Amino acid sequence: MAETDVDNQKLIRRLKSIEGHVRGIQKMVAEDAYCIDIVNQIQAVQAALNKVSTAILDHHLHTCVTTAIRGEDATERERVISEVLNVFNAKSK
Amino acid sequence: MAETDVDNQKLIRRLKSIEGHVRGIQKMVAEDAYCIDIVNQIQAVQAALNKVSTAILDHHLHTCVTTAIRGEDATERERVISEVLNVFNAKSK
Amino acid sequence: MAETDVDNQKLIRRLKSIEGHVRGIQKMVAEDAYCIDIVNQIQAVQAALNKVSTAILDHHLHTCVTTAIRGEDATERERVISEVLNVFNAKSK
Amino acid sequence: MAETDVDNQKLIRRLKSIEGHVRGIQKMVAEDAYCIDIVNQIQAVQAALNKVSTAILDHHLHTCVTTAIRGEDATERERVISEVLNVFNAKSK
Repeated sequence: MAETDVDNQKLIRRLKSIEGHVRGIQKMVAEDAYCIDIVNQIQAVQAALNKVSTAILDHHLHTCVTTAIRGEDATERERVISEVLNVFNAKSK
Repeated sequence: MAETDVDNQKLIRRLKSIEGHVRGIQKMVAEDAYCIDIVNQIQAVQAALNKVSTAILDHHLHTCVTTAIRGEDATERERVISEVLNVFNAKSK
Repeated sequence: MAETDVDNQKLIRRLKSIEGHVRGIQKMVAEDAYCIDIVNQIQAVQAALNKVSTAILDHHLHTCVTTAIRGEDATERERVISEVLNVFNAKSK
Repeated sequence: MAETDVDNQKLIRRLKSIEGHVRGIQKMVAEDAYCIDIVNQIQAVQAALNKVSTAILDHHLHTCVTTAIRGEDATERERVISEVLNVFNAKSK
């Protein structure tokens, strides 16, 4: 199994756990749990999603971005850099 | 059906849609989709979760917080106010 | 001196320190400091601003929001609650 | 004047304007302005700081990061990539 496949398996496991977490929050809502407890669980899911995003961005910088920056195609270099900035920006709004 | 039940049904529907979205992201990872496309979908899920948090906080301010602030128990008033601040803080880190 | 005046003095001192911090960042830029060091200082300023926001929101919940919610004017109650939600939302985008 | 100098002048001008904005907020506090108006101004300063961060990160990706990734020093490549991830992470907490 290639390294990337192993990494993908890890990411999918984390996303499955996040999916289960979201299902748990539905149950909390259905059972009229305390609002603040629900909001705290939602924030926990968001933190878990941030970790997945960071792992993917880490992989991306080591692969596509590195390849593009080492390549000779200036347009492609610009494209990958501006994509990374957009992701950063979407966070920081 | 009480108004709260209707609201809960709406929230659960939104959370089910978020759960499906997370499942879709797993599929993207399994199919080796482009990293930035995956990160964008994760950020879309986080935005959808923010809307759910805001809806719950809205309900909370109109119910528990209003009851506590109108009540005579100063400790309880402090408790609900400090919970709201904590939620705000967790966002703003 | 009223309690609020004391609190205001504290907030103003913190904002003066933030102002000095921003001036320091200008100097870093002028002296061509390392980009990441500058970005880290900007994030430190944003964290300091978050603390000021939280302190002001804390005060606001204990004063205006409490008065409005205890009052008989339903429109005013709605107004203060929706303002708090807007502040929360602006954070969470 | 080198291109970088021109860019630095622009950044410094933006930071001077942010500094003035922070001074304006001190005045609002001193004059007992409405809490929510003050918090809104703080959030506007934070948005302006985000724009400065993004501009610096943009420059950084085009210069130091590009140089390091094109270079032969694997440790240095790792260092710049992990710095970019840290900045992203500090945002996303």
